[in-house]
Amino acid sequence: MTEHRSDTIRPIRFEDGNLYLLDQRLLPGEAVRQCYTDAGEVATAIRDMVVRGAPAIGITAAFGVVLACQKARGRDDWRERVAADMDRLRASRPTAVNLFWALDRMAREVDGAPDPEAAIEATTTAARQMLDDDIAGNRRMGRHGASLIEPGQAVLTHCNTGSLATGGYGTALGVIRAAWDEGRVTEVFADETRPWLQGSRLTAWELVHDGIPVQLLCEGAAASLLRSGRVGWVIVGSDRIAANGDVANKIGTYGLALLARAHGVRFMVAAPLSTIDFDMPDGEGIPIEQRAEDEVLALAGKRVAADGARAYNPAFDVTPAHLVDAIVTEHGVVEAPDRDNLAALRRKAVAGEPVVEG
Amino acid sequence: MTEHRSDTIRPIRFEDGNLYLLDQRLLPGEAVRQCYTDAGEVATAIRDMVVRGAPAIGITAAFGVVLACQKARGRDDWRERVAADMDRLRASRPTAVNLFWALDRMAREVDGAPDPEAAIEATTTAARQMLDDDIAGNRRMGRHGASLIEPGQAVLTHCNTGSLATGGYGTALGVIRAAWDEGRVTEVFADETRPWLQGSRLTAWELVHDGIPVQLLCEGAAASLLRSGRVGWVIVGSDRIAANGDVANKIGTYGLALLARAHGVRFMVAAPLSTIDFDMPDGEGIPIEQRAEDEVLALAGKRVAADGARAYNPAFDVTPAHLVDAIVTEHGVVEAPDRDNLAALRRKAVAGEPVVEG
Repeated sequence: MTEHRSDTIRPIRFEDGNLYLLDQRLLPGEAVRQCYTDAGEVATAIRDMVVRGAPAIGITAAFGVVLACQKARGRDDWRERVAADMDRLRASRPTAVNLFWALDRMAREVDGAPDPEAAIEATTTAARQMLDDDIAGNRRMGRHGASLIEPGQAVLTHCNTGSLATGGYGTALGVIRAAWDEGRVTEVFADETRPWLQGSRLTAWELVHDGIPVQLLCEGAAASLLRSGRVGWVIVGSDRIAANGDVANKIGTYGLALLARAHGVRFMVAAPLSTIDFDMPDGEGIPIEQRAEDEVLALAGKRVAADGARAYNPAFDVTPAHLVDAIVTEHGVVEAPDRDNLAALRRKAVAGEPVVEG
Repeated sequence: MTEHRSDTIRPIRFEDGNLYLLDQRLLPGEAVRQCYTDAGEVATAIRDMVVRGAPAIGITAAFGVVLACQKARGRDDWRERVAADMDRLRASRPTAVNLFWALDRMAREVDGAPDPEAAIEATTTAARQMLDDDIAGNRRMGRHGASLIEPGQAVLTHCNTGSLATGGYGTALGVIRAAWDEGRVTEVFADETRPWLQGSRLTAWELVHDGIPVQLLCEGAAASLLRSGRVGWVIVGSDRIAANGDVANKIGTYGLALLARAHGVRFMVAAPLSTIDFDMPDGEGIPIEQRAEDEVLALAGKRVAADGARAYNPAFDVTPAHLVDAIVTEHGVVEAPDRDNLAALRRKAVAGEPVVEG
């Protein structure tokens, strides 16, 4: 794959049977790759946010299954061992559906293999394909999304949806990269995204790295920014989209969607088709991960809040479909998403029909 | 003044001609009182947020004028020296109107004094009165605001509006203290309030100190909390209220007001009458302080964002009056505030008429 402008970061590498993850907890201060040979350790890495972002979690888990197959090599009970490791991976985080989608796909590869060697080969091929497809899909998604943006506007994004959250290039940040390269975007604003500061630590790092100017803001400043009229689109990713178009994404997204609507700013969700959970009728049923209170109460390991204070720390929220102006996938754009037009998108994608622009 | 339940903190003390400020930058880790004898140093302390919160800034500046008079003792050019110090205090921060209100009041005391000794006596008496009046007014404000809250609800607050932001007891947090003491509030939620984390560092410290349970949240989590139906009122303070009821307050307030309205949650602003700037027709004209980018880009002096990233860091925003359900002052409640009912409140306050409940 050729290197493109605005795309120079790869968080997940698989070389010589080892999985290397860029440790996103240490960015932007240090760019350290951790090496993994054990699926259980990969599950822990996902839980502890060495890697995060729905598509990246899915791809990482897929390579985790490769590691599980390698470890089970030569064992009579190899299928049970691989299944146990897949359960560990499955339990790492609850909200992003790409994790389960990737593991289901890997399970089919394992089921079809007669022995561990065949399973290693099949899962390695499938995981590499998943990674390549993700990057190629993100490029298509980027072009689809960019086409919606009229030149001369700033955009606002939330959390990190870039190369670091995917195999590479990104979902919402891929749209922003494409729109920047096409000269459609005047400025990029990025929420710092508490409590993990993915915006400050990751999105800003990616954009600076690729030469795209970025201004960070605290979430509380988004309303006055949107009121200023400088922002044409809020563009975010998703951890799971229900069949009716309800969007689970990083905490703060739902509020942004309400604020965008209140100011006549459009709201775009960019995510691969694998993020749409057609088995989930609406957003009410999407499990929302509650994370540790210390993520809010402490900064860099040091307690900030008074002892005795508690924290309310959901990691995600659900934006109802009626607040979403467009869902952008690698297979095309769905404007004003609902159950019918999302199902139609899936049918066309499965049939391999040409991409239909919304 | 007797000590009350839920009220044990005093950030500003004046003893033996010295001004002592509880250094709010070090809380909750350390409770250190800084001693000031020079008005210029007080101006720097206000700018650097040793003390913050509109009423506390006003009272601090008033005592700064006392220090200026003390320093000018025995000088022929004492009036010029005091005036220069007052200019320094006036330039410390632009948004909170209480600062200018307090300095105007002190200027009248200085103007009426024949010599420095008389000015010291007059300004000391006036500043002490301002402090005592603030605390007494906050208690009345607390009772007025609490009366609006139907028992059995949680409340959500933003930034710090407590004892630390005032002479004592607080404005919005005073309402919450009173409502808690009356058994009207089931839980207190507090935004952590980036970038200074006044919620985590100050509001939580005050509430824990006074035995009131508190849950902190990141600003991004407010929308999903409000959607949950647990919160009956969002209660905030203000740095300046325009004559038409538009409310300037800590960045994030405007977004909270929009989110409250979208979820049928009521929105209360608690502030002393001195916060209402009747010379400011509406919120458009209120100067909004832009603070240093490093407040967003760094945490505890350590850069968090990638080098090269910028920040958008307004310290305040303006909430239009139509999003405010009630403005609560020490002189009573104004529901659905507008130019007429705020002017009526002022007339009654000036006339010393009995408090009219909204």
